[in-house]
Amino acid sequence: MTNNPSFSQNHVSWFNELLGHANVSQNSNDLDEVSRDYTEDLSFLPDLLLTPNTTQQISSILKYCNENNIPIYTRGAGTGLSGACLPVRGGIVISMKRFNNILNVDKENFQVTLETGVVNAELKEYLKPYGLTYPPDPASMGSSTIGGNIAHGAGGPKAVKYGTTRDYVLNLEVVLPSGEIIWTGANTLKNSTGFSLTQLMVGSEGLLGIVTKAVLKLVPLKTEELLILAPFSDASKAAKCVNDILLNGFEPAGIELMEVSGVEIAIDFLKLPFPKPEKTEIYLLIILDGNNIEELNAIAESLYPFLDEAGALEVYLPNNSETASIWWKIRRSLGELVKQQSVYKEEDTVVPRAKLPELIKGVKEIGTKYGFRSVCYGHAGDGNLHVNILKDEMSEKQWTQEVPKGIVEIFELCKLLGGTISGEHGIGLVQSPYLNVVFTDTHYELMRGIKRAFDPKGILNPGKWL
Amino acid sequence: MTNNPSFSQNHVSWFNELLGHANVSQNSNDLDEVSRDYTEDLSFLPDLLLTPNTTQQISSILKYCNENNIPIYTRGAGTGLSGACLPVRGGIVISMKRFNNILNVDKENFQVTLETGVVNAELKEYLKPYGLTYPPDPASMGSSTIGGNIAHGAGGPKAVKYGTTRDYVLNLEVVLPSGEIIWTGANTLKNSTGFSLTQLMVGSEGLLGIVTKAVLKLVPLKTEELLILAPFSDASKAAKCVNDILLNGFEPAGIELMEVSGVEIAIDFLKLPFPKPEKTEIYLLIILDGNNIEELNAIAESLYPFLDEAGALEVYLPNNSETASIWWKIRRSLGELVKQQSVYKEEDTVVPRAKLPELIKGVKEIGTKYGFRSVCYGHAGDGNLHVNILKDEMSEKQWTQEVPKGIVEIFELCKLLGGTISGEHGIGLVQSPYLNVVFTDTHYELMRGIKRAFDPKGILNPGKWL
Repeated sequence: MTNNPSFSQNHVSWFNELLGHANVSQNSNDLDEVSRDYTEDLSFLPDLLLTPNTTQQISSILKYCNENNIPIYTRGAGTGLSGACLPVRGGIVISMKRFNNILNVDKENFQVTLETGVVNAELKEYLKPYGLTYPPDPASMGSSTIGGNIAHGAGGPKAVKYGTTRDYVLNLEVVLPSGEIIWTGANTLKNSTGFSLTQLMVGSEGLLGIVTKAVLKLVPLKTEELLILAPFSDASKAAKCVNDILLNGFEPAGIELMEVSGVEIAIDFLKLPFPKPEKTEIYLLIILDGNNIEELNAIAESLYPFLDEAGALEVYLPNNSETASIWWKIRRSLGELVKQQSVYKEEDTVVPRAKLPELIKGVKEIGTKYGFRSVCYGHAGDGNLHVNILKDEMSEKQWTQEVPKGIVEIFELCKLLGGTISGEHGIGLVQSPYLNVVFTDTHYELMRGIKRAFDPKGILNPGKWL
Repeated sequence: MTNNPSFSQNHVSWFNELLGHANVSQNSNDLDEVSRDYTEDLSFLPDLLLTPNTTQQISSILKYCNENNIPIYTRGAGTGLSGACLPVRGGIVISMKRFNNILNVDKENFQVTLETGVVNAELKEYLKPYGLTYPPDPASMGSSTIGGNIAHGAGGPKAVKYGTTRDYVLNLEVVLPSGEIIWTGANTLKNSTGFSLTQLMVGSEGLLGIVTKAVLKLVPLKTEELLILAPFSDASKAAKCVNDILLNGFEPAGIELMEVSGVEIAIDFLKLPFPKPEKTEIYLLIILDGNNIEELNAIAESLYPFLDEAGALEVYLPNNSETASIWWKIRRSLGELVKQQSVYKEEDTVVPRAKLPELIKGVKEIGTKYGFRSVCYGHAGDGNLHVNILKDEMSEKQWTQEVPKGIVEIFELCKLLGGTISGEHGIGLVQSPYLNVVFTDTHYELMRGIKRAFDPKGILNPGKWL
């Protein structure tokens, strides 16, 4: 906690003048609310909360803070899972919630221009009448903002077919600490004009500038979806299945993976029906999308032999849309419900897809070695496995001293398998202690150099990994 | 020309020691060969040509050159269209032609690891037995290297469906001027671990480091291709057609555009048959791909109404594979044949797809104003239009003084339409004078800051746009 009662009232007056009193808050409830995101039990109070609604206001704020060395933390919906937006050094939180306008849908060019406080699912809803959609679908999409998605390079189940946030960002309006405003690129599908500042901003976690507007690429909306559920007795059979499906030219929108231990927690809590044949250890939930349900059924038919061949214990299709909703509900609430079980740490491991069985096996062995239980689920189609480590009855000492050693081993295993320590959550605070598993001093130096080019005085998101 | 007869023989001896005499050349034929690429009539002689074949050798070379302030220019196949690899300040050209090994095809994870001197088309051929392919297909793919493709963020006809080089680069081995060797990322489809150094390297034109190895994403190979040729009486009808096709959920691999004036040049030279109904001003060449020719024919059938509706003068399918080859040959040789007509300047304009008619109209008006003829062709599906400005009988004065004013106007029009000055060729030398149409001082400062982080002494590709 770094709340600072002596935060200069001169600063507060200056911001009141700029934004109006309604958009400047030192109210303790307000500050408390922005002291947390969805990451474990972390909390850091800022000194001041600002809620601007124009790029020009953000420019003025940054210029002022840069001159006065005031830390700035930019916040979307606060649904992050790495603590990247938390004001660890106090100072100012800029809430983007009033940047919530969709400015233009360019139906001819499949593009949308919007302010970055727009919520992901609201954008999707808004686009439906145009027959277009924005595919990235992080679990948080009901509340997370496009700006937060950009800051973290957010993924989601449908990354298998559609890629992640990175693949949809064409051009960004960015305010730099100097107060200067730039557009990073052009509204085009191709761009070989200088270093890609656009791509550099994606995943930069509020360290380089504040993204105020975005031009996003859209794709035609698929109107139909079909789920296939396949339980397996072990992860390697499931992984073989994933590979067979993809290599044979099928293009599922997603292939989700759930350990039975996680599904059981969700079933118990939600009291919903879910198939569980004997010997089930792991589930694949395959998502097909298209515009014609008969075609999807035909694709599903042609998938069965591959599921059988790979050793699926059974293959289930939902009888009706209610069943499909239940399956989605179980998958989507899994993370939250697992985390309600106990104090936890969530790791966002990612490896080449076919290495998932090795990773899961390794996670369990490391758990045995350090005495922790883990529940894994995630995205089998792209190798992104969320490993939830549960404290359960573990002593505080073991939790704070032994478990981190186990996490280092998990990340070392990821690296060995060709992977890394975050697939879609970012570094923020919680991955920061483990970053040297994958970064050398040279990586840090390059990234610090990039940081200096954008933010020479280090006012943006100070106290994080860089 | 900056050839320097006094280039230190101490340096030469040092490189002979490192690489062996066979891989160090001051032979004037060798130097002449690497003084040019495929860009207009530019030529700059280096002092020395090195042909290393290990990352460690490149590390030693860079460390030595950094200590001795010797300019380094990295060269793939020299097929670039912007002059980005040319040694404008003499010094050393490093040829990557011996970095030609494909190190590993990971069939399970749809990845290949290779040295960056591997030729694009050779990679495609190598991957066929695995049932996989690397989609980016720049016109130069028969000779251009993966390293050159990465340096320029190369695109190609199939970018419509498959994206550009950027979308396939997962992880890069890079040698920095300090001699340090890093891998930029991980071999994963998702990665939110720090700033994306991988994406920063793509399109960085040899200014930040030398990319020695790459891990590329692959996709299942499509075995069948079907072409559809549709002539139109004007560009706006063709553009409407493109939009209708894409919005109705068709996923053509490519939609190429050719002005009739360019096609006529190709037909005359190649003496090949090509349909040309009356009133034809512009052609669309639509490329469908898949694994089943009956399915492709069915898709083509369902496309016809959209072509008719948009006003196609006729719709042609090739009778046989020979006809299809002829159509591809005409499209692929168009650029080269147009450029044989006259001294030329090629601009690599790019705008949002549906703005192409406005761009083409503007180019013609600007041509009339400044007295030049232009021939346009390119990628209708992604808004990337190659504008070839022909000198014909124009005076040298008009060519060097008036035409550049017209080019500025063309690029200003691109910007106005939401586009930029290079879609897939890069900046290099030829786009450099026009960069301030789209970059402000702030953009330059950010990019110079990034450059400093990687190459503080500026030994990599000096004398270019940064």
